Amino acid sequence: MQRREPYGSRLCDGKQIAAHYNAYTAFSAVARGLRAGRHTLEIVADNRFSPESALHVPNDYMSYGGVSRPVLAEQVGSCYIERIRVTPFRREGAWLARAEIFVSNLSERAPVSLRLRIGETERLLPPARLADGLNVFAAEISCPGARAWSPQDPALYTVTAILEKEGEAFDDLIDRFGFREIAIEGKRILLNGAPLYIRGVCRHEDHPQYGCALPFAAMAYDLQLVKSLGANSVRTAHYPNDERFLDLCDELGILVWEENHARGLSLEQMQNPRFEQQAEEVTREMVEQHYNHPSIYIWGILNECASDSEYGKACYAKQFDLIRSLDQSRPRSFASCKFKTDICFDLPEVVSYNIYPQWYHDTPAGEYLADLYGWVQRETGGAGKPFLITEVGAGGIYGYRSAYKAKWGEEYQADTLRDQLEAILSFPDCSGVYIWQFADIRISEEWWGTRPRTMNNKGIFDEYRRPKLCFESVRACFQNRP
Amino acid sequence: MQRREPYGSRLCDGKQIAAHYNAYTAFSAVARGLRAGRHTLEIVADNRFSPESALHVPNDYMSYGGVSRPVLAEQVGSCYIERIRVTPFRREGAWLARAEIFVSNLSERAPVSLRLRIGETERLLPPARLADGLNVFAAEISCPGARAWSPQDPALYTVTAILEKEGEAFDDLIDRFGFREIAIEGKRILLNGAPLYIRGVCRHEDHPQYGCALPFAAMAYDLQLVKSLGANSVRTAHYPNDERFLDLCDELGILVWEENHARGLSLEQMQNPRFEQQAEEVTREMVEQHYNHPSIYIWGILNECASDSEYGKACYAKQFDLIRSLDQSRPRSFASCKFKTDICFDLPEVVSYNIYPQWYHDTPAGEYLADLYGWVQRETGGAGKPFLITEVGAGGIYGYRSAYKAKWGEEYQADTLRDQLEAILSFPDCSGVYIWQFADIRISEEWWGTRPRTMNNKGIFDEYRRPKLCFESVRACFQNRP
Amino acid sequence: MQRREPYGSRLCDGKQIAAHYNAYTAFSAVARGLRAGRHTLEIVADNRFSPESALHVPNDYMSYGGVSRPVLAEQVGSCYIERIRVTPFRREGAWLARAEIFVSNLSERAPVSLRLRIGETERLLPPARLADGLNVFAAEISCPGARAWSPQDPALYTVTAILEKEGEAFDDLIDRFGFREIAIEGKRILLNGAPLYIRGVCRHEDHPQYGCALPFAAMAYDLQLVKSLGANSVRTAHYPNDERFLDLCDELGILVWEENHARGLSLEQMQNPRFEQQAEEVTREMVEQHYNHPSIYIWGILNECASDSEYGKACYAKQFDLIRSLDQSRPRSFASCKFKTDICFDLPEVVSYNIYPQWYHDTPAGEYLADLYGWVQRETGGAGKPFLITEVGAGGIYGYRSAYKAKWGEEYQADTLRDQLEAILSFPDCSGVYIWQFADIRISEEWWGTRPRTMNNKGIFDEYRRPKLCFESVRACFQNRP
Amino acid sequence: MQRREPYGSRLCDGKQIAAHYNAYTAFSAVARGLRAGRHTLEIVADNRFSPESALHVPNDYMSYGGVSRPVLAEQVGSCYIERIRVTPFRREGAWLARAEIFVSNLSERAPVSLRLRIGETERLLPPARLADGLNVFAAEISCPGARAWSPQDPALYTVTAILEKEGEAFDDLIDRFGFREIAIEGKRILLNGAPLYIRGVCRHEDHPQYGCALPFAAMAYDLQLVKSLGANSVRTAHYPNDERFLDLCDELGILVWEENHARGLSLEQMQNPRFEQQAEEVTREMVEQHYNHPSIYIWGILNECASDSEYGKACYAKQFDLIRSLDQSRPRSFASCKFKTDICFDLPEVVSYNIYPQWYHDTPAGEYLADLYGWVQRETGGAGKPFLITEVGAGGIYGYRSAYKAKWGEEYQADTLRDQLEAILSFPDCSGVYIWQFADIRISEEWWGTRPRTMNNKGIFDEYRRPKLCFESVRACFQNRP
Repeated sequence: MQRREPYGSRLCDGKQIAAHYNAYTAFSAVARGLRAGRHTLEIVADNRFSPESALHVPNDYMSYGGVSRPVLAEQVGSCYIERIRVTPFRREGAWLARAEIFVSNLSERAPVSLRLRIGETERLLPPARLADGLNVFAAEISCPGARAWSPQDPALYTVTAILEKEGEAFDDLIDRFGFREIAIEGKRILLNGAPLYIRGVCRHEDHPQYGCALPFAAMAYDLQLVKSLGANSVRTAHYPNDERFLDLCDELGILVWEENHARGLSLEQMQNPRFEQQAEEVTREMVEQHYNHPSIYIWGILNECASDSEYGKACYAKQFDLIRSLDQSRPRSFASCKFKTDICFDLPEVVSYNIYPQWYHDTPAGEYLADLYGWVQRETGGAGKPFLITEVGAGGIYGYRSAYKAKWGEEYQADTLRDQLEAILSFPDCSGVYIWQFADIRISEEWWGTRPRTMNNKGIFDEYRRPKLCFESVRACFQNRP
Repeated sequence: MQRREPYGSRLCDGKQIAAHYNAYTAFSAVARGLRAGRHTLEIVADNRFSPESALHVPNDYMSYGGVSRPVLAEQVGSCYIERIRVTPFRREGAWLARAEIFVSNLSERAPVSLRLRIGETERLLPPARLADGLNVFAAEISCPGARAWSPQDPALYTVTAILEKEGEAFDDLIDRFGFREIAIEGKRILLNGAPLYIRGVCRHEDHPQYGCALPFAAMAYDLQLVKSLGANSVRTAHYPNDERFLDLCDELGILVWEENHARGLSLEQMQNPRFEQQAEEVTREMVEQHYNHPSIYIWGILNECASDSEYGKACYAKQFDLIRSLDQSRPRSFASCKFKTDICFDLPEVVSYNIYPQWYHDTPAGEYLADLYGWVQRETGGAGKPFLITEVGAGGIYGYRSAYKAKWGEEYQADTLRDQLEAILSFPDCSGVYIWQFADIRISEEWWGTRPRTMNNKGIFDEYRRPKLCFESVRACFQNRP
Repeated sequence: MQRREPYGSRLCDGKQIAAHYNAYTAFSAVARGLRAGRHTLEIVADNRFSPESALHVPNDYMSYGGVSRPVLAEQVGSCYIERIRVTPFRREGAWLARAEIFVSNLSERAPVSLRLRIGETERLLPPARLADGLNVFAAEISCPGARAWSPQDPALYTVTAILEKEGEAFDDLIDRFGFREIAIEGKRILLNGAPLYIRGVCRHEDHPQYGCALPFAAMAYDLQLVKSLGANSVRTAHYPNDERFLDLCDELGILVWEENHARGLSLEQMQNPRFEQQAEEVTREMVEQHYNHPSIYIWGILNECASDSEYGKACYAKQFDLIRSLDQSRPRSFASCKFKTDICFDLPEVVSYNIYPQWYHDTPAGEYLADLYGWVQRETGGAGKPFLITEVGAGGIYGYRSAYKAKWGEEYQADTLRDQLEAILSFPDCSGVYIWQFADIRISEEWWGTRPRTMNNKGIFDEYRRPKLCFESVRACFQNRP
Repeated sequence: MQRREPYGSRLCDGKQIAAHYNAYTAFSAVARGLRAGRHTLEIVADNRFSPESALHVPNDYMSYGGVSRPVLAEQVGSCYIERIRVTPFRREGAWLARAEIFVSNLSERAPVSLRLRIGETERLLPPARLADGLNVFAAEISCPGARAWSPQDPALYTVTAILEKEGEAFDDLIDRFGFREIAIEGKRILLNGAPLYIRGVCRHEDHPQYGCALPFAAMAYDLQLVKSLGANSVRTAHYPNDERFLDLCDELGILVWEENHARGLSLEQMQNPRFEQQAEEVTREMVEQHYNHPSIYIWGILNECASDSEYGKACYAKQFDLIRSLDQSRPRSFASCKFKTDICFDLPEVVSYNIYPQWYHDTPAGEYLADLYGWVQRETGGAGKPFLITEVGAGGIYGYRSAYKAKWGEEYQADTLRDQLEAILSFPDCSGVYIWQFADIRISEEWWGTRPRTMNNKGIFDEYRRPKLCFESVRACFQNRP
């Protein structure tokens, strides 16, 4: 569907031609001046934990090693199209698309022209001589009859860019996007002008047979299960996802909260000297690489990090600024677990909380939510903003059933999720909820103490995608919500 | 087999006639002056946690409520035999028994005489006028042909005491005991002069169908399983056990470490103003009620309590003194988890440790044990004493199998137990080992966080007594040890 | 509660003093002329399958060996009371009881008198000289204020018989019974004049820890579960049960269909030359031994045997005649699986069928039931009689869950039981239903081919008494039936 | 890797352009004369059971519906290469390859020439004018330095065919093959002259997430597991497999028994009037499509069909003849379950039996095998031929463990497989063994009665690919066999 780039760090014929931090965003490398014949391309992947790595730390999910997403080799000429960025918008009731085409110039000296096609409309931009490195072509194209993308009707369009020299095409790139606008209006998130209500699940890339490297059929299977639950959204906790997964969400009309790579970093971990740069990279790459996906309606950052400290707040602010500089079309948020000590709610457009009533504490969900929400409105910069629950859930070990409803039993999980969801879904000022989590996942061995089976067992499905008893209670709650 | 007394607190026709602390030792009550007709006996059992109760605290086992051991009503006359204490000993190669008969006098004024029978030997003690309350008759009886009790040949004898008035019997009591002596010689524990090697399991009174109130058939089933493992001992962690269980151990030749009621009390919990008296009561009752069981070869106290503090040490000393005052025939110990900070090893005859190498930490068992043992010998009052491992083990959730041997999987548990046992069983200065634990048990709900299924899953059997994969590795280790 | 008799065949000091066929009824033996001293009583139990045994055959339940019910030794004098038979009945609105006391005379030559006590009423029967062997005393006692026994109020009374010689008591026996009458009126079974509706379960004596020798606590546990289902009856398929179980049913108000020992015998198996006598014995012993239990409201015979053949019919007739000669107070029935070929429905008072719609065939339960019932009314001697479903059910392997509702999954079982029960409970001419079965049971190894786990998996509970998913659907059906 | 063809029956713009029987072989369709613009290609797949279909019948595996293998659309010109058939052979110690290139001519009138490349060697065949329909080019190419393919060194080579017109390439096809020869010598099967010993598993295409449509990653996962067992072969019971799976076997050096589509057809089912033609089609397509795979060392037909009847024998003979006409390079066999009644062993080169000692009967494996083998040698046309066990195994329900080793428990399965394998692997005249089966599979609902979970549970792995206890016993047996 789209040009895809390899992940990792790379050696060509034994010589390093690229290095890249982070497992969850793509990178590319150009090997220049190769003669005809056999060449060797090596990818060296390193998943060791160390102070060198600020984001990959022992965590409540598994950090697998190796090359876990597709690799593609392509022959390029003197210049080539690197990516296209399409921003749909509405003007006077009709759809338009602003396209920016990023062309990488290796050695081209002659003028090149760019042909752009969106749907049935084609435009030939005037020839230009390229600077070295990155060049941007831009155009605004009116698409009067375009169908809007929505969960109910996930209409997709292709954008085609073709580089020509003297009328002869020599490079092209096709990408896909949808016509839709996200906006914030008071306490509501609007999609094409109508309020969104999120019934979502958080999902890790994890499978007992494939680790984090799920084949396409497994991704599609997961999304069928998500739909069978009556859910309309997925949160890609806690890192940018495989682009094929996002493609499927685009096609199926599943809204996506995409998140940069960070989970539960303490203040001390955020003070790692590498943190700022590594987080900047993954965030930039996430937004640039996934910009065109209509399913992504929000960017999330820094899940459960130190948003209760001044140092932390500076980091949150910097990352939010970066996202805004790269994308003016989507709201931003972060999932907080700092309860009444969070000091960052003035920064994003949407206030989000991870809560676990009746699991990590005994306060009933409704009471807990009302108390928390009241505090946000009265005492924080988040007052008046849309409000999301980004995690709620309970552990349940598949096959462990308890007639007396012990914790970790499937019955307790089912009852607790029902109680939590009923409280949240009926809370008037809430824009939606994400359940933690779609399916059980493997975790870092270091976390075994509080994680039966050395797994996080809060899945609605177990790791083999078998529905637990809570499947029915979640589905009933999601379907009863208009 | 023996007169058994009810547990709890009691009301007779609505009037309180007795109160008793602790669920794990028996008590009796005499209702006096009842007229002929129907009467009501009520037992009020209270299992709430509160500061009133120093020993029953939320813990790594379940504190069930209700009446969980047998209740017996008996009609007594003006005086009756309360209990018999038999102490076997060897003199010039032959067995003797010293019997003390405790007679409770309610209102008898005439002289009574006591007839005593052990095996085939009978002795009539001269008549005596009884004081009010408790009176003691004592006699030493020579039993020249007696067979010694041992695990290989658990020969049991009965002692019969009969109260007579003017040649007419009016009360009797029959109890059972065995001829055997326990001694300490250097680093060895001796049974009838030969060194003991303990291959044991710790066991809670717990069953999914009966809570802590196991019927006799369920106890017998458990002990069959213990034998099938090749084990020769049970530790009644962490409280005195049902006397029928001890009867079975006597009959089957299973050695018992019986323990008073306490588990993991912190210094603060030991400082509860009720602690001293409540612990004194359960300890006294345990020793008095279970004195005659030949299977009990050692008394344990205060498992994993604050033996690293001066305050704690004073408590340990007081309890050890109490035991010695009640029983001069058995060694004493306690199971420590204080590693190199324990200061109490000068007090008991046997040094005991609970260790969990490769479970709670990664140091291999052999290395860990050698280090610990070296410290005890070099730096503590425990030097030169017998040394036991009173707990070793790993969690394994029945049915959770992990090809990559994750923690909580049955494979990991099996491998870890094998590694632990091989290290311990081949450690020359160790007198034996208890595995934690016989079977999975239910725990206090408050402990759910680190306890999958709200259970302690370190059983060799699950709660339904199904063998886990570790059954085979434990059996192999136990059988390979001569 | 009652005198209990040992089971098996017996040797006293190596000499055979009794022989007994069948594992499911009690027998006794008198050892005469023993001198003072030690004697040996041996019980030899033989559970081999062979042509010698017509009733114990490889079957859909396990035939365990050994002594599986209690054994009691008692010292008797020259004569003793063997049993009491109490028949309650109503005359002019008040309860009476006819008591027959069976006295066994070994050697008594002097006249003896019998004192009889029911509730508060006592009667001294005139002295009589006993014949050798069995003698019967009889009396009718009026009990004007007696409370009737019913499931709602299971009031029990004791009957005491005392043998006296010259005013001196020398033997007694206490038994228990209840005041209640069973009658048939048209298509209804009446208990104390009101129609009964049976919501029952079939239950085998089986447990993974104890085989068929369940301890009392395990029986009580099972009956708690039966009550938790909203059931009011148990069918003791396919043999007479342990008397302690019947005692508990009496106390808890659980109605019992007690059944003689036979399951699925083919015509050929019924033609075993031993069949007639062996079946006669177990039937006679069942009725005689369990006559007093108020909970037993019906006698069943010959489950799923050859009731479609003339030979078979003669056997059914003979057994029904025997029962009537022993007991005129209860109706009789048999559970048929012969569908439209059964020829025995003219014999009993109640017509009963075992059916498995949607399990062994695909016809929906309602349609199947209507068809079968119509045939019985139109074409058999069972027309106009009460009609029971004595088995209905489906297999479900605990822990096997199937999102697509495959057979053997818990979901399929839950749905099927709900469909079956809804059809039956709403069928107007049906007097009730027994679910096959209470809990999963072990079977004869020979039956493994169609029995996953070498067990019958149709239990509402698994063998460990864990509720399957169908527990909720059964409970809902039972509770919704007025 | 290879041109792949779609499966099913096809409509182009609503007009039928192809029909095809059988789900397990590929077919293609050419849509002619399409104008530029959008066209619709529909595939209608029908998996209903009916007398129309002789091979798809309710069976011990699931017949899924839909399109379960890849579909590919390709634009072809006036003529195109349909397939290449490569036959490697050795002459005077050096490898050669005979290539036949099948060219389909739609409308080409001008002469075309064919360029052929194997490894480094290229040959240009002289131009020729094509007949309508299928044309064959053939050439023999000497490959002196070629590495032989073997399980230890699965060296693969590509063959490239290019169609040229006037020196201009306009169609090509690349396929892959290996240099190896299979031969029969007495009782041995030889690979490149050395005797083969088969340690194999039978495998169905089945997975709980994907039905029979496993993605490539799932196939690769399965083959990793096969290798982890120490196995060297897979039997594609009971139909031709997805070509990507065969590609992986080629690459991994896993020998393949590929089998046409038929399982357990009775004489009556073989007499279905459609049987002969439908079987002929799948057999022809299997051999033609998979001819080049070096991993396939034998063709199997008609598993467990009526090889004990004359009618059946005629069918077997016809299919064997067909295979021989299409492929002279591989031996042929069939898996019999007719024991001493089979009459077809004179037909194939290899005699094969499916046996289940200690599962379906109680005769020990060694005794059973010796008896059967003796009969084959003494009384059949199979005497002196290589002898394979094509199925052996036992059912084991994952997670069902039985301390008393009941059938269906994992322990019984592990012990039985070990006993079976030890007998077979030490039987001197046996060329190897296939275990039934790799993993548990779903079956046709009609077979539920003898199939717990409505699945065939004889897998070494369960359906989720979790190793059962037998994994270790199988691996030990396979690894101990030199």
